[in-house]
Amino acid sequence: MEGKVVHVPVETLREFMYQVFLKCGVPEEDAKICADVLITSDIRGIPSHGINRLKMYYDRIKQGILSPITRFEIVRETQTTAVVDGHHGMGHVIGYRSMKLAIEKAREYGMGAVAARNSSHFGIAGYYALMAAEEGMIGMAFTNARPSVAPTFSVEPMFGTNPIAFACPTDEEFPFCFDAATSITQRGKIEVLARLGKPTPAGWVISCTGELATDTEAILKGIPAGEYALLPLGGAGEEMGGHKGYGLAVMVEILCAALQSGAFLKDLSGFDEEGNLRPHQLGHFFLAIDIGRFVPLEEFRRTAGEILRRLRAAELAPGAERIYTAGEKAHLAAKRAHERGIPINEDLQRDIKFLQEELGLSHFDFPF
Amino acid sequence: MEGKVVHVPVETLREFMYQVFLKCGVPEEDAKICADVLITSDIRGIPSHGINRLKMYYDRIKQGILSPITRFEIVRETQTTAVVDGHHGMGHVIGYRSMKLAIEKAREYGMGAVAARNSSHFGIAGYYALMAAEEGMIGMAFTNARPSVAPTFSVEPMFGTNPIAFACPTDEEFPFCFDAATSITQRGKIEVLARLGKPTPAGWVISCTGELATDTEAILKGIPAGEYALLPLGGAGEEMGGHKGYGLAVMVEILCAALQSGAFLKDLSGFDEEGNLRPHQLGHFFLAIDIGRFVPLEEFRRTAGEILRRLRAAELAPGAERIYTAGEKAHLAAKRAHERGIPINEDLQRDIKFLQEELGLSHFDFPF
Repeated sequence: MEGKVVHVPVETLREFMYQVFLKCGVPEEDAKICADVLITSDIRGIPSHGINRLKMYYDRIKQGILSPITRFEIVRETQTTAVVDGHHGMGHVIGYRSMKLAIEKAREYGMGAVAARNSSHFGIAGYYALMAAEEGMIGMAFTNARPSVAPTFSVEPMFGTNPIAFACPTDEEFPFCFDAATSITQRGKIEVLARLGKPTPAGWVISCTGELATDTEAILKGIPAGEYALLPLGGAGEEMGGHKGYGLAVMVEILCAALQSGAFLKDLSGFDEEGNLRPHQLGHFFLAIDIGRFVPLEEFRRTAGEILRRLRAAELAPGAERIYTAGEKAHLAAKRAHERGIPINEDLQRDIKFLQEELGLSHFDFPF
Repeated sequence: MEGKVVHVPVETLREFMYQVFLKCGVPEEDAKICADVLITSDIRGIPSHGINRLKMYYDRIKQGILSPITRFEIVRETQTTAVVDGHHGMGHVIGYRSMKLAIEKAREYGMGAVAARNSSHFGIAGYYALMAAEEGMIGMAFTNARPSVAPTFSVEPMFGTNPIAFACPTDEEFPFCFDAATSITQRGKIEVLARLGKPTPAGWVISCTGELATDTEAILKGIPAGEYALLPLGGAGEEMGGHKGYGLAVMVEILCAALQSGAFLKDLSGFDEEGNLRPHQLGHFFLAIDIGRFVPLEEFRRTAGEILRRLRAAELAPGAERIYTAGEKAHLAAKRAHERGIPINEDLQRDIKFLQEELGLSHFDFPF
């Protein structure tokens, strides 16, 4: 069961997260960025990457594998490109500053791309793509991640959920924003099934013996030991296109690691060879394209908007309620979040209370 | 049954295609490009986009909806970007010259991107991505296409197979090259099943009444009338991530249409409102990224190669023979093609004989 869910106003949670990061030693400006990335995820209806992860960042800072102070070093720079080193600082800050840099370059030269090394978990990739969309640009963001997904014809978790995010402005109330793992699903969704006591749909996960696993509890227990792996978009084998999801994930790995000569695949596990914790050494890749260099921005907005409206007006499948376009559900979720607050389940309530006690933040009067 | 398959040497087929294009009125240099794009597809083991399509181009030129002479007009240009108009000329030539332009820009500024309008079917997207890889760059190529794929929760074919191609150099014998439709499959594969008398796997195609269709003959007959639609990567609904394949396809549509204020979705059908044939008005998007601006090219090659080698060395699924990386099967196919020639099935033999007779090319002494 999901347990008792309480809704908390967006701004209360944002302020709380900001305070938590400050208490962890994150400088003011950076703490604002971290809190904004996380609350944006909750606002957009992606609870897996929002305040739900706050304690994970806290733990990693305490463990010494995540630096609260982010030394953002530009290692190499040309007109349109840069390689930056985040020195194991906050992924959100590294992501934010990298995309800012890409946007500046795109404003001057039409395009900008930044590869980041020695970074850490940066929240939703869509946040950074949206930064460009807000500037009248196309934004793309990619990251590699802890190994959890098996290549086609393998059962070994070799690469991460390696998401692709793409955002652009439209003439509608909200931007187009595609932001998705290149795997069918990610661990967070299986955790939700566990709370609901539900089985995992056959096809999401493969066991080390090659079976499509559905036992949610067993999967969650066995994933860290490599007994189970997530499957790429398209599923096991090639018949339903699993090699395509796999290929997209490798593309993301190459963009995120090879353009900055960084760590990749299993070296992103967060453990060294002796099993000791170490920084995750993630890599990201950010791309900004200045739309106005191609066509007038208003024209682009209109074309993009019209594409989306026509898609939503397509003939419905029998029994289906409506057709969405990417970014639309997030827009609807944001409306709900601002009206009703963010749903906080019992697990998360416990985490929040723990952080309040640990960090002396009891003046936040949460309704739990 | 596949019928009697005959193998013909690569260079014979290349020369034949070159001569066919010349006879159709395509200028020498352009005819070389067209033939090279098509033969590259056959060499790489993608028969659906090679000489198999030669008669389609011939037919379209005859029908007056494809211009053999390609007027390649640069409509707008900045340091890193360009919009070009192909004036309904040969898609291969438009693709080739667009990617050349993107590569030149990337050489000078680090990145280059070109959006093309009023183009036509350009063969495999991977060809253009590989052009950049040969220059030590990352190449990406995208195209929209005739509507055949339904959005998630729809049964109406609204957009094309909208492929994504990504290529980069490695330290191996062959480049990494991902080149795949954002749908699970494409029509060509269903045609192959028809020749073999096999059913279509459930999940590839949805009928207008919302069923997963498997009757291969019925599907091929019903697709032009919109009675069936292909499904996006991830399949029907959202459970297996169908919304992700759909989202990627829309990303491709936006890149290919909105950056050049061109036609999109159902307007790419090749028919006007009265049902008369008209140019397909396809759009493409090409991107080149100069790797040396980020890290030394040799370092990139090594990292990318090492990623691929580690993936291929992952633990095999029980019963699986080996793990591939994108571009590897094409490399193996190319070895076979150069040794044994390209397999030409009976349908294709008929097309070739037809073109020989129509165009006075009987001096090609094919073994059929």
